[in-house]
Amino acid sequence: MDKNCLFCKIVTGDIPSQKVYEDETVVAFRDIDPQAPEHILLIPRRHIPTTLDLAAAERELVGHIFLVAGQLARKLGFAEAGFRIVNNCNAAGGQLVWHLHFHLLAGRQMGWPPG
Amino acid sequence: MDKNCLFCKIVTGDIPSQKVYEDETVVAFRDIDPQAPEHILLIPRRHIPTTLDLAAAERELVGHIFLVAGQLARKLGFAEAGFRIVNNCNAAGGQLVWHLHFHLLAGRQMGWPPG
Repeated sequence: MDKNCLFCKIVTGDIPSQKVYEDETVVAFRDIDPQAPEHILLIPRRHIPTTLDLAAAERELVGHIFLVAGQLARKLGFAEAGFRIVNNCNAAGGQLVWHLHFHLLAGRQMGWPPG
Repeated sequence: MDKNCLFCKIVTGDIPSQKVYEDETVVAFRDIDPQAPEHILLIPRRHIPTTLDLAAAERELVGHIFLVAGQLARKLGFAEAGFRIVNNCNAAGGQLVWHLHFHLLAGRQMGWPPG
């Protein structure tokens, strides 16, 4: 945990959030600035700054996050219509919080290019 | 393998592509309609139609794809500046080819919302 990290504070509950899922390794909560009718952030509990900091031993973690995204899509009723998952790494990718996170967006037709 | 799948044919080489990486489970090649100066598609060799078809046993596969994306970012020189990884599932997500794939985009500032 990084004491200055917004998402670490959401994991611990020191900063409130609208959580939609949590387990031993992953937390999912609603984005406070949604870009679609459904906009959820999925993050590892552990403080991993960026995609580039993923260790080979963490392969399963990212796969688990995608499986949880699929479960949420089914539970929230937008699996069949469709959704987009976005991961931003570093400034040009649009990363604003340095704690690895995956945006799950749904509820409208997503456009192309993806930003 | 699905005989009618464009990406399966790219995996086998029946359809030519500009491959930038391949190993036992993953193939990466340049998108033919790039949306950024760098636009690479990362796909599993195995025909998995969508994110929703990922089996729990395939957790490592998705993580491996993200690790390969990081390796490519470093090799192609855009890791530090940044990049975006996008996965579209079903029609509202913008999926056009029904073989699981991850878009790796870089070389420009990515915008928000992501499509």
